[in-house]
Amino acid sequence: MQRAKVVGKLWLSSAHPYIEGYKILILCDTTSGEENYYLAVDSVDAGFDDEVLTVSGSASRQSGATKKSPADTAIIAIIDQEK
Amino acid sequence: MQRAKVVGKLWLSSAHPYIEGYKILILCDTTSGEENYYLAVDSVDAGFDDEVLTVSGSASRQSGATKKSPADTAIIAIIDQEK
Amino acid sequence: MQRAKVVGKLWLSSAHPYIEGYKILILCDTTSGEENYYLAVDSVDAGFDDEVLTVSGSASRQSGATKKSPADTAIIAIIDQEK
Amino acid sequence: MQRAKVVGKLWLSSAHPYIEGYKILILCDTTSGEENYYLAVDSVDAGFDDEVLTVSGSASRQSGATKKSPADTAIIAIIDQEK
Amino acid sequence: MQRAKVVGKLWLSSAHPYIEGYKILILCDTTSGEENYYLAVDSVDAGFDDEVLTVSGSASRQSGATKKSPADTAIIAIIDQEK
Repeated sequence: MQRAKVVGKLWLSSAHPYIEGYKILILCDTTSGEENYYLAVDSVDAGFDDEVLTVSGSASRQSGATKKSPADTAIIAIIDQEK
Repeated sequence: MQRAKVVGKLWLSSAHPYIEGYKILILCDTTSGEENYYLAVDSVDAGFDDEVLTVSGSASRQSGATKKSPADTAIIAIIDQEK
Repeated sequence: MQRAKVVGKLWLSSAHPYIEGYKILILCDTTSGEENYYLAVDSVDAGFDDEVLTVSGSASRQSGATKKSPADTAIIAIIDQEK
Repeated sequence: MQRAKVVGKLWLSSAHPYIEGYKILILCDTTSGEENYYLAVDSVDAGFDDEVLTVSGSASRQSGATKKSPADTAIIAIIDQEK
Repeated sequence: MQRAKVVGKLWLSSAHPYIEGYKILILCDTTSGEENYYLAVDSVDAGFDDEVLTVSGSASRQSGATKKSPADTAIIAIIDQEK
């Protein structure tokens, strides 16, 4: 599980039918101090600059929304930054 | 499997129904000498400053408590520091 | 999920029947700034110099094309670089 | 798969029922030259200073002994150092 | 998926019945420029100095030969170096 900030969106010109229709966001890891970019399928309608919680591996296909996708990383929550 | 110290708790403002109700803790790795932060779903009611044992990957969904969650890391034991 | 550029193709002289017939491409990671090479099974007919989206782990066997292969990394989309 | 030397044992004061009864050892990686510590569930009755073979991920739950444990790393053999 | 050169063989003095009978080779990664050693179960009868293709994770148990083994890395092809 990692914390990350949404910094962009990926546009696909040719995609495997299994990944079509999924929104793939570009994230910057905020768990550690280092600047580390990675990609994840969105399942909570996250927006630009939101801080989110992501999971990796088979865990990213545990939710109904991503169950049959070839996702290996998924956004599963938006983090509340006021607390 | 990693040893880690509990250093905080994550607050979610908008979460995937599959992760709602789970307590997600912020951990600092104590297995190696480096300071490395990561997140895990709690399954043993760990508290602040406890040293815990975590597992990653599909192993984190082997317990009854986390079976259907999208967890990719889980706290499965509290480490006894007196021995 | 990683972004990468196709930089070559792998030729196999003796392969496990399970991997025969699959096209394995050599990729250079473009997600982060570092130059990092890795290999993936192709499922979208990617060509030299294409920028592609890859997934790792069991996710790479979610598509019909790679379902029974021993792939641990697969190319699942070509990235549109004009946007 | 990694080679490692057994350097200690972990004591748990409060554990998830799923991990109770398993012996968790502290290992020092000997595959590469770096000093890297990690933890694993024992399935071959390894002792202090033994050089062992470990596996990670779902592979660590392939054996009868660890099948239903939440192990993500397991010791599966003792390495013969005389050859 | 990684490219690697076979540099040795591992001898086990006491092994979990699930791993007995498998040939475990010592490999040196050739995907990137760094010298990185790792271990894998052989499924294509690779020999010393062969350049091979390996897969990690659950992919290494997709082939008939390694299906029930506790392998987390497997050699699945020999790479043709003449092309």
